[in-house]
Order: sequence, then C-alpha cells, then structure tokens
Amino acid sequence: MSKILVFQSDFGLSDGAVAAMYGVAHDVDMDLKLYDLTHDITPYNTWEASYRLFQAVEFWPKGTVFVSVVDPGVGTDRKSVVALTSKGHYIVTPDNGTLTHLKRYIGMKEMREIEEAKHRRSDSQYSYTFHGRDIYAYTGAKLASGQITFEEVGNELSIDDIVELELSEVTLVDNGIKGSIDILDVRFGSLWTNIARDDFLKLGFEIGDWVEVLIKNGSTLAYNNRVTYGRSFADVYVSEPVIYVNSLYRMALAINQGNFAKAYSIGTGRHWTIEFRKIN
Amino acid sequence: MSKILVFQSDFGLSDGAVAAMYGVAHDVDMDLKLYDLTHDITPYNTWEASYRLFQAVEFWPKGTVFVSVVDPGVGTDRKSVVALTSKGHYIVTPDNGTLTHLKRYIGMKEMREIEEAKHRRSDSQYSYTFHGRDIYAYTGAKLASGQITFEEVGNELSIDDIVELELSEVTLVDNGIKGSIDILDVRFGSLWTNIARDDFLKLGFEIGDWVEVLIKNGSTLAYNNRVTYGRSFADVYVSEPVIYVNSLYRMALAINQGNFAKAYSIGTGRHWTIEFRKIN
Amino acid sequence: MSKILVFQSDFGLSDGAVAAMYGVAHDVDMDLKLYDLTHDITPYNTWEASYRLFQAVEFWPKGTVFVSVVDPGVGTDRKSVVALTSKGHYIVTPDNGTLTHLKRYIGMKEMREIEEAKHRRSDSQYSYTFHGRDIYAYTGAKLASGQITFEEVGNELSIDDIVELELSEVTLVDNGIKGSIDILDVRFGSLWTNIARDDFLKLGFEIGDWVEVLIKNGSTLAYNNRVTYGRSFADVYVSEPVIYVNSLYRMALAINQGNFAKAYSIGTGRHWTIEFRKIN
Repeated sequence: MSKILVFQSDFGLSDGAVAAMYGVAHDVDMDLKLYDLTHDITPYNTWEASYRLFQAVEFWPKGTVFVSVVDPGVGTDRKSVVALTSKGHYIVTPDNGTLTHLKRYIGMKEMREIEEAKHRRSDSQYSYTFHGRDIYAYTGAKLASGQITFEEVGNELSIDDIVELELSEVTLVDNGIKGSIDILDVRFGSLWTNIARDDFLKLGFEIGDWVEVLIKNGSTLAYNNRVTYGRSFADVYVSEPVIYVNSLYRMALAINQGNFAKAYSIGTGRHWTIEFRKIN
Repeated sequence: MSKILVFQSDFGLSDGAVAAMYGVAHDVDMDLKLYDLTHDITPYNTWEASYRLFQAVEFWPKGTVFVSVVDPGVGTDRKSVVALTSKGHYIVTPDNGTLTHLKRYIGMKEMREIEEAKHRRSDSQYSYTFHGRDIYAYTGAKLASGQITFEEVGNELSIDDIVELELSEVTLVDNGIKGSIDILDVRFGSLWTNIARDDFLKLGFEIGDWVEVLIKNGSTLAYNNRVTYGRSFADVYVSEPVIYVNSLYRMALAINQGNFAKAYSIGTGRHWTIEFRKIN
Repeated sequence: MSKILVFQSDFGLSDGAVAAMYGVAHDVDMDLKLYDLTHDITPYNTWEASYRLFQAVEFWPKGTVFVSVVDPGVGTDRKSVVALTSKGHYIVTPDNGTLTHLKRYIGMKEMREIEEAKHRRSDSQYSYTFHGRDIYAYTGAKLASGQITFEEVGNELSIDDIVELELSEVTLVDNGIKGSIDILDVRFGSLWTNIARDDFLKLGFEIGDWVEVLIKNGSTLAYNNRVTYGRSFADVYVSEPVIYVNSLYRMALAINQGNFAKAYSIGTGRHWTIEFRKIN
C-alpha cells in the first residue's frame, strides 16, 4: 500500500470533524501521509463528491486510499464499501452514487462491503452519525497502512451493483454536438461540459474557429453566441469568451479573466444543456 | 513525543500567517508532521477555540502537541502556557479560556508557563503581535520534536489557576432536562447541546419517542415542537427534525438534510437554552 | 534539497485542482512533504501572490521549494521559471510579477527558465490550461526530491529581467512619513503599510506617542485621526485604533478586537496612501 490517505467530505474545515478523522487515522498508524481532496462539497451532494474524485484520483500514486464522506443516508441501509479502480486506487465511501464518475470514466475492478462489526472504532457504539470518523477513516487507515488487506475489508460485492447517478448522454445534433454542464471550475466560473475532446473534434472544429454556442436551462435559452475555439484563455482578449479543452480533456467554456457562470447566471446539472454548432 | 504538531487559530487560510508558523516548525525539525485542526475560529472567540479542541484532541495519538492561537490579549499579561491533559496530549496556548472544555470534560494533569526569554525565535524581538509564529509554533515544535522536555518549557503553574470560561449547568426541570446550545455543527446547522447522553437517558427516553423541545433566547421562545428521538437522521423523513446523540455523546438537534439553525434562526451561547420534556 | 514542497494558487480548495497537483507531486516522489501557503489568492491577482510569498517564504528551511500558480497569462508567452532567493528558497512560478516582493525585499540570486519539453508530465499534451499540475507541480516535485538539479531546470535568465509590479515609494513629508497600504491582515481587517519600522522610528516616534494618521484613496480623504503608537493591540482599549509594528517589521494600523478596514471602508493598492505625522 502507498501509506497515503486522502480525505474528502462535505464537512467544511470550520470545526473539528476533519481533524478528528485525521487523529483516528494517525492513531492507527503514525507513518501514514494524510491529505485532503476537498471538504467543501455542497452538503449531501453526492454528484459533486463523485465528480471531484474523478477530477483528482488518477493523478495520485497507485495504492493511494481515498476516504469520501458525503453521506446523506448515514444510518440507513446504504452500504459502506471500499472500491478498487481499474488504475489501482482505493475508495472508502458509502455506496450512494459517489462512485459514479470513476466507474464510468476510469473503470472499477472490485468492490467489498465494510464489515462494520470488525472495522468500527472501539468506544464508538453510541455514535450513529459520524461514520466518517468511526468507520471510514478507521478502515481507510488500516487499509493504507497494510494492517488489513483489501480482502479483509469484507465480502465482495458485484461491480454491477454499484449505485450510480444518472449521467447525461452526449448526442450529435444538426450540425453540432450536445451535452450538459457537469460542473463549474468554481473559482473561475468556467463551465465544464460532459463532451469529450475527441467527440468534439470529430465534427471538424479547428483551433481559431468560431463556434455557435447554445446553453439552455430546460427549454429556456440562457446563452446564444459565437465563441472562438482556442487552445487556452490567452487565444482571446481579456473579457472575451473562449471554448477550450479542460484539464480532463473535456470541452469547457470560460471568459478570459472573467467569470462565465456569474456573467450569464449559468448553473450545472442534467437540465443545463449546451450545444456547439458549426458555422458555415 | 509523537512528532505530530497540530495547529488551530483564528487566522483563516487566506494569507501567509499559518504558512509562516509551519515554516518555523519545520525549521526546528524537518521530521515533524504538521496538521491543522481549524483556522476558522471566529476572530477572538476563545469559547470556540476551547470547544474545537475538545471536539478533536482526544482522537489523536498520545503525545500529540497542539498549538492554539486565539489570542485577543496578545501583548497583555495573559500567560503563555503548555498544558498536559489527563489523556496525554499537550496544548500550547495563551491561558485565556481556551483550555476550559478540555479541563472540565477530559481533565488536566499539569501546566507550565512558557519561559519566553528562552523560547522565543531569534530576530523576533520587535514583533509583539505574532506570538503564534514567534513563541507558540516555535515552542510547540521544540516540544514535539523532543528538543526540549515538558519540564524545560518553564515553571509549573497550578491546574487550579487555569483561566476558565463559564460553562452552563445542565439541570433537571419539571418532567425534563434543560441545558444550553454550546455550538453548531456549522456546515449542517445542527444544534449541539451541553446535555450528556447519559443524563438524557436517565429520564427514560427511548429511541422512537416523541419529545417536546423548547428553545429560548433569554426569555424569548424561539422554538417549541414535538420531535422524534432517533438513532440517526435516517430515522425521520428528509426535512423532518430529529433529536440524536452526537459524535461527542451529547444530545443534538438537526433537520434531516436541512439546516436547523438557519430554519429557526437559532444561535449559540449560554443564553440559548434548550429543554427536552417527556410527553405523557 | 529539503524534500519540502509548498503550494500557492488562486484555485481555492473547493474542487479537485489542488489535490491533483498533490497527486502529481507524490507520483514523482512518495517521500516529499507537501504543504499549502494559501490557495485563496484573489483570482488572477499577482500582487497578492507576490506579497504572500514575501510573508511566508523566509520562515521555511533553506532549500524549500515553493510552487505558485497565479497565472492569468497561461497560454501566452510569459515565461515559466524557477527562481532562487538570496536566502536559499526556490520559487516555481510564471514570471508575471509574482516575484516582485521577494526580489525587492529578500533578494534574488539566480533564475532559470523551465524547459517545457523536458519537464512536462507525459500524456498532458492536449491540456493547455493547467500548467500548475502539468508543469509547475511536476517540475517543483522533481527539484525538491533531488531528481533534477536547479541547473537541469533549464537555461539561466538574468535576474534583471524578472517581471516586476510597480511598488510604491515611501517618502518623507512635512513632519511625517508617507507610504501606501500594501495589503490587509485579511481576517482582522488590519492595514499593513509599506513603511518599514526603521524609517518610521527615524522620525523620533516613541511607544505611547499620539500620531496623526491620514489615509487617502487617491485625493479623497478616507480617515484622519490621532492614534496611539503602541507595542501591541493591548496598549489601547478594546475598540480603540492603534499603530504598531507588524510581523514583517512594517507599520500597521488596527482596531483592538475590531476590523479597521471594514470600519472605515479602507482598501489596498498604490492609490491608497497613508501618512503618519508628528503632533507638536
């Protein structure tokens, strides 16, 4: 194992919850390396949790263990699992949709259910609301440290049974391609779509082309304009919009040194669709 | 010593102050492991500082050194101390109330005053406003690394003289129990009371019971309703309120996937009282 | 090398971008120690990036490598460089003004241009917008781990050619000294000026003196009052303003347990000037 444990949650960093998880992990093994993915997931938002894992996991060394605690169903019969991706990363999480993007875009190799009777911190039997500390951090730390094997986590579950959130499809439309706005590059207000670079390029777009962009919220038109397809923000003037390939090789839309989402009040989700159309 | 140093402050993470403390610590010993509890304590709020330590400290390995810098009295004659809890954790802090909850709920074993003449960074003699960097981080790092012993910190002070903030008492009332709202689980808006699980249960409440809840701000009624006592959020419908045992084994009140504090404009502090009453 | 890598950016911590940089760094070398300076630089603000480095870098051990990614010109011909300060710290950054304060106040010894053809992550050839992950984190990690020497980063550039932002001058005025408000101690709203302690003291001010303070936004008077020059906040009553020497040995202005910047709507930048005048 890598001895690296990376935490994600919707807890924020304003109280002691994340630090309590860190303490539990180091109490298991002083030699672990502990890091954060983000703790700023919108409360209860498993879609964001799933996307942020997709955005970061693959860049870490093989064998890195991730603990993701966005758990609106804590206390229900949702399963606590450890999943192994096809690239060799472990994800400790409630099975509630958090594994959606990794399964679809990276691939899953194996999943096991955490046997809670074995892998719960002692003296935590009356705490039913902080599985992040009492089960996930504890199990993740034991796995990352090599104190337990992946097999010892618990019984294998079928990959086919992973709970998945619905992902929008990308479709070809008249003279263009249509997808949805998956998520924002929050800080800069750029729109990240689910349209892969390869699918976009198949339509014959080339760097420097003007492209017609349509953004709709359901059936309501939210934006319609011609935008340059550039290599990077710097291919347009400051304040100009630009279509570009983002760091996950998907098509994105930004304003150079501005904030596209704020400028046009654009949101994210399956009902926020975007089309790129060729201009004759 | 554990070689682990954990920082808490009201500095936020937007500037270089926390990073300067980290640098000082690693300049003392490259092998230390450096972590944050939180830096988002409300400025000057020693109550929150005290509570967050209580929430996290005990989960870390014995010998872990905590540096807490919430210091409205920097430059006054408030003492700079290192306290040793009865469970073996060290807290480097101004003695200004920050040790209140740990002393009351965990217990204190010993306290020493930092001899500033010995334990101040060189070349910091004209800086009177950043003891966090120049004294606390520096002393904490030397202690965590084993370069100085606890005894070498300075003279022993009496545990009895620790500066303590006033804690509300929990009292039995007609057919119920009354306490105060100590703090919020910020991100989810749940109310954390000072009423211990054991004291609550003595009244005979059982999982599934309906309980009458009264919340007052001083003498003004802020909330009065019947609420289910559940094991976890999942014992009620989404959007329903629930009474539960929090991760510190105290009674708490939440809205399942909602925000109780925002919904009813509830605050925290000694004048925010809460009663749980039996329903016949 | 120190094996320590410290990251700064304007990415925030709400998404997976910083975690992706961390992953890349650990994929280069599992033994690196990874830390953050801040990721809360105002988007595109190279002035803040420059100031925050100045505030924190010198407190870290010699040989520490800093990666700063505030990069409004990503994709332009701005250079990607590694600079070595006169105190032995390395800064990996776009050369866009981010090195201004370190060059002026600490001094620069040498600078090299990152040879991108050699120091770009494999499989990142279609990503033009995340040099932080694909070039800076990767190069910084190789340098901090000792896998490449400073010389192997690329060709040497002249220190004289470092891109510098304009810094305000400090000048003597009738019976006083005039400078500008460089930046805020954000969390507490204190004003940090560019007036060095030594220059202030040359005018004969002593602890306890009343000093006339004038703050202007361009030619508009924003504040004019008599303020005590104290050793620390505690030299004045709670809620009173105080002039003091900040942790970087520059003159600063605060309200004891208040927020000066908010109280008087004071901003930062070269057009925000401040004068300290002797009172007869």
